[in-house]
Amino acid sequence: MSEDKKTQKSALQVNPGIEAPPIVNPYAMENLRKKRRKLLSVDEYCDGILSGNRTILSQAITLIESSLPEHNVLSRDIIERCLPYSGKSIRIGITGVPGVGKSTFIEALGNEITRQNHTLAVLAIDPSSERSKGSILGDKTRMETLSVNDKAFIRPSPSAGSLGGVARKTRETIILVEAAGFDTIFVETVGVGQSETAVHSMVDFFLLLMLAGAGDELQGIKRGIMEMADALVINKADGENINKAMMAKTQYNSALQLFPPSPSGWKPRAMTASALQTTGIKELWETISEYISKVNGNNYFDTKRKEQSKFWMHETINESLRNAFYQNQDTANNIKVLEQKLLDNKISPFAAARQLLNEHNTRTNS
Amino acid sequence: MSEDKKTQKSALQVNPGIEAPPIVNPYAMENLRKKRRKLLSVDEYCDGILSGNRTILSQAITLIESSLPEHNVLSRDIIERCLPYSGKSIRIGITGVPGVGKSTFIEALGNEITRQNHTLAVLAIDPSSERSKGSILGDKTRMETLSVNDKAFIRPSPSAGSLGGVARKTRETIILVEAAGFDTIFVETVGVGQSETAVHSMVDFFLLLMLAGAGDELQGIKRGIMEMADALVINKADGENINKAMMAKTQYNSALQLFPPSPSGWKPRAMTASALQTTGIKELWETISEYISKVNGNNYFDTKRKEQSKFWMHETINESLRNAFYQNQDTANNIKVLEQKLLDNKISPFAAARQLLNEHNTRTNS
Repeated sequence: MSEDKKTQKSALQVNPGIEAPPIVNPYAMENLRKKRRKLLSVDEYCDGILSGNRTILSQAITLIESSLPEHNVLSRDIIERCLPYSGKSIRIGITGVPGVGKSTFIEALGNEITRQNHTLAVLAIDPSSERSKGSILGDKTRMETLSVNDKAFIRPSPSAGSLGGVARKTRETIILVEAAGFDTIFVETVGVGQSETAVHSMVDFFLLLMLAGAGDELQGIKRGIMEMADALVINKADGENINKAMMAKTQYNSALQLFPPSPSGWKPRAMTASALQTTGIKELWETISEYISKVNGNNYFDTKRKEQSKFWMHETINESLRNAFYQNQDTANNIKVLEQKLLDNKISPFAAARQLLNEHNTRTNS
Repeated sequence: MSEDKKTQKSALQVNPGIEAPPIVNPYAMENLRKKRRKLLSVDEYCDGILSGNRTILSQAITLIESSLPEHNVLSRDIIERCLPYSGKSIRIGITGVPGVGKSTFIEALGNEITRQNHTLAVLAIDPSSERSKGSILGDKTRMETLSVNDKAFIRPSPSAGSLGGVARKTRETIILVEAAGFDTIFVETVGVGQSETAVHSMVDFFLLLMLAGAGDELQGIKRGIMEMADALVINKADGENINKAMMAKTQYNSALQLFPPSPSGWKPRAMTASALQTTGIKELWETISEYISKVNGNNYFDTKRKEQSKFWMHETINESLRNAFYQNQDTANNIKVLEQKLLDNKISPFAAARQLLNEHNTRTNS
């Protein structure tokens, strides 16, 4: 991964095909700047996206992920223009702790569904990741066959910013890849943080990958995630693992019976799979298809999508309100001081909050 | 309940001991206003609370729940003054859907622990409730023996306001009842909404009450709540129910093994109880005591309390930021319009959010 990062960085810093010069060449740098600055028009981006041009799609996603205001203005227009062409895909969230074999699994499922003539976009939310843009290479290395599959498009997690920001960017990216015609979207995340809730709020089907073992398979999984899942897949059900995996499947299936029912009417189920041997993959896709036809039948699919839309509107508002407060440097400094008083039980959480709000309001109104 | 409400209302409207006059007597009304306006000093409230005076404690809680600014200023001072005397109780969250026998259960557990010389305050969070202040009587009727137990203090849910507001008031009330010397606190809620997350964020131990049955016991319980619980108690394990309850206990205990481990190191367990026959109650209290001594030993008790303090500081800030936005009438009207456009897929959640934020900022800055 660190090797990939280096490669990617140097590719950004010098023109490809030109040996990295021993000292900085000002002309080359100037050319690079011009090159990086060159933007298309909204029309050009949208035409490119709608015609399925992946280079333009990638560039438009880069605008969404950019922190430059001019890029953001542009990406907003692109999103609104693409909106009427979006919404027609099946969105699947995939989570699981590191080591569960997520990349191999995504490859196996991805190759299976593209064989069935679906087109697939793989997105990710992983704000904790130290991956830079170099992880495009990293992800393509992780998913060797899927990355050269012409029905698949792999895009790593936006790496900069808060969870809220990263998640919002991924949610916006969904609109573009749908407009580009991808009919299936995977949103990948690591099951150890809060990103699952965000993913859960942007997908139609939520999949938890696990390993069979003496309870260790859940080490690191956040409590509450299991109850979000529409299916649990016990991966690496191959070789000596098969029996353990089958047993785990039975146990989880009994446990899932005891869970509160979902408003979808769907009963979450446990399954086994081997991404390595591509067993259980077809069955999983059948299960997902069964789910989709069930929730299309009872209208839960639409209801959930509409609730999710409202969620993202309010979430974007709330994030913006929070940012205006917490990103103020003086406020950030005050928070540190008051958190300490709070931990020393010298002030209540409520008085600390009031003090921070009052000081912030005084500052921003003066 | 409506009878109770009437009684309570008329007690507020006329002087006790005086027959309600057939026509309004302006002098009586003036006396009443003076009487209602009469507040103690912060010193008097705090002295009263610290000496365990329940009348004054109740009055101070009423100030917390009040929407009058002068009451709030006063209650804030009282809270900060009581703060150094707070924090020494065990806080227990109790949830379960209606019909699970929560009141009877709280009575049984409450009477058991007061017999062991603990003092108990029972609070509640139930913003959906239509109970008014009259529910003090309602709750006392629900918990007949506990309400006359002189080691117990029962206070119903504050009824006005948003979930956030109601939960914050309950969290503030905890400080006062702790300062008044209660060493055990129950925070009761109904397991069907979002209030569980709020309760979970203010208690040390979280208890889910259930019934044995063909899965129906979970009908209405929100997904995610089971994974929050430190113990599941299958209530009404009496009479013909005993066998079913014992089976459910075994099943849930197997299922709980499959849950992600809690950072507390505690393994949640399922138990049976009959609040009616007061069986399993002592065992539950032993379990809670075992939990407390475990998390005191590994310092999780303190860590969690500190995290909760920070949570409430940030939650109070965020709630205040949201209120400033959403309680603006023009903004509220605009939200309705934009939500419709959103549902018609005419605008993205992000553009809708930006438009609402821009319009709000223009209004509030002009």
